[in-house]
Amino acid sequence: MGPDSREASFEPVHDLIDIRHRQAERRAHPDGQCAQKPAEAEVLAWGGVSDILVSNEVVSSRKLARLAALTNMSKISICADSAIVVDQIEAVAESSATRLTVLVEIDVSGGRCGVEPGEPATALSVRIARSRHLVFGGLQSYQGRAQHLRTEQERRDAIGQAAARTADTVAAIRRQKLECAIIGGAGTGTFAHEAASGVYNELQAGSYAFMDADYARNRPAPDFEQSLFVLSTVMSAARPGIAVLDCGHKGIAIDSGLPLVHARQDIDYAGASDEHGSLILRSDPGSLAIGETLRLVPGHCDPTVDRYDWYVGMSGKRVECVFPVAARGMMQ
Amino acid sequence: MGPDSREASFEPVHDLIDIRHRQAERRAHPDGQCAQKPAEAEVLAWGGVSDILVSNEVVSSRKLARLAALTNMSKISICADSAIVVDQIEAVAESSATRLTVLVEIDVSGGRCGVEPGEPATALSVRIARSRHLVFGGLQSYQGRAQHLRTEQERRDAIGQAAARTADTVAAIRRQKLECAIIGGAGTGTFAHEAASGVYNELQAGSYAFMDADYARNRPAPDFEQSLFVLSTVMSAARPGIAVLDCGHKGIAIDSGLPLVHARQDIDYAGASDEHGSLILRSDPGSLAIGETLRLVPGHCDPTVDRYDWYVGMSGKRVECVFPVAARGMMQ
Repeated sequence: MGPDSREASFEPVHDLIDIRHRQAERRAHPDGQCAQKPAEAEVLAWGGVSDILVSNEVVSSRKLARLAALTNMSKISICADSAIVVDQIEAVAESSATRLTVLVEIDVSGGRCGVEPGEPATALSVRIARSRHLVFGGLQSYQGRAQHLRTEQERRDAIGQAAARTADTVAAIRRQKLECAIIGGAGTGTFAHEAASGVYNELQAGSYAFMDADYARNRPAPDFEQSLFVLSTVMSAARPGIAVLDCGHKGIAIDSGLPLVHARQDIDYAGASDEHGSLILRSDPGSLAIGETLRLVPGHCDPTVDRYDWYVGMSGKRVECVFPVAARGMMQ
Repeated sequence: MGPDSREASFEPVHDLIDIRHRQAERRAHPDGQCAQKPAEAEVLAWGGVSDILVSNEVVSSRKLARLAALTNMSKISICADSAIVVDQIEAVAESSATRLTVLVEIDVSGGRCGVEPGEPATALSVRIARSRHLVFGGLQSYQGRAQHLRTEQERRDAIGQAAARTADTVAAIRRQKLECAIIGGAGTGTFAHEAASGVYNELQAGSYAFMDADYARNRPAPDFEQSLFVLSTVMSAARPGIAVLDCGHKGIAIDSGLPLVHARQDIDYAGASDEHGSLILRSDPGSLAIGETLRLVPGHCDPTVDRYDWYVGMSGKRVECVFPVAARGMMQ
């Protein structure tokens, strides 16, 4: 099995219907996308995406009912990692007179959500398959921790272990006469390894479309150019060698490190407050003027995108398009 | 001079017209508010705030023109810390056929924006006063770094030094036959010291309305209760002693520390990814069920508020009101 062409997003791409359509144009699989929240899935469905996987657990009956309502517009799949939630999804699907596809999320050392691979995952798969209003959809097997392991060897080893545990689970499920239509996972840091494993049939990388400073610290760095920048302006330069930018915590995420200044290796973004960023100039102190604009490379693209209502698409110095970040803030 | 009653916000309050009106009802000064960005000032003006201080530098002619346009609706003041920007504001005010009030921001060891106190600040004040379309409005003297100094003594010393430098500057400006109508600054961590200094006549604290975990680490902590929470749900509890919440980087700011779990000191919010928070239970591992809701206390209130479109006001367990975060994302 090779990689399927579903475009997924643990990554900020999910906020953007327009980019999804552009991705779909270039792919075999016409219109499959991932989301993490029911409110995001709603935006995708309203935007015409016909096959949506919520690659995450949803445990509220009201939120599940919102997903069930979307089955009139799109195919909706969701993940589960406990019998309690499987039964809850079944009850909601029944009362909504629809069917929902449910994948079993397994914990392949990501250390977040997910049932244990092997027997526990198999038992949960059988429970889904036996639920009258559910369709067993396969396995969600995302190794999030592996994405930013810095060396190729570490990433290969982590995904090798994840793939082995996934393959064992697929085999155990098959012995129960069930097939895993989707065996999904992977991110921008590791997708080549999942693709090469022969185990996964769906790759869910998303950050590659934008990239960020944290992914660029992987060795080797993923083979994608930085396309996402926050344009900011020098608002104060009252002392030599120091300047203040008009972009701080509200404008850029620092959870995975401070931003870098694009094409200006002589400038460090040294600290952030809510609306300010402090710059330190390591070269000519006079080289940065009030009003000058700089492109910041976010440390982490996903939560940075989620702060904005619009993307501005540039072609050189020309604005080519403006896209809404359609699912911004859709956290429910 | 005692503290004026202008409510200011380096803090998230500025995102919310409704709360501003409620603050105004309880104050002598009917309708003065701070903002940090022209786009925020627009929301305030459209919401009926009649006296707006952009307590920050704005260096783009286009953004300044937006502020100038607001002078038809409200009194608009702005800060400057360089002659270049003063001349730019003058040019915009002239071409907009209006007058803008400009305060000189001085750097009282906040280490961010601001001209040096004393002679440089005085020269800039004179330059403003001599500009035909500008009104000299006074001094902006905010010591941001002092807000989270942990001991009372450190905070008192820092504000004592800031107040002394501010007083010297006020005196120097007075020798130029200019009066400082506003001498503004202070935040939730230090406002008692600015108020007691006899120097400041405007206090710009904002976080007090919400509070956060970082302010609560001051000793003594500011005398305000926590009122801002992010309601989140346990979405996975696949292993004993560990659980996963449905709120991560997109839902809560971690720049000033991880969130605390309100009223559950036996639970640590131990790590965040984009849409997930990992909990560690230090008590009975069975005490946290899937679907259970927990109130998170943000490490930092300002950028947390800026992630949301709505506040939900609770009275006990009852929803009492829903407020829009009217200026969310108004970063321009």
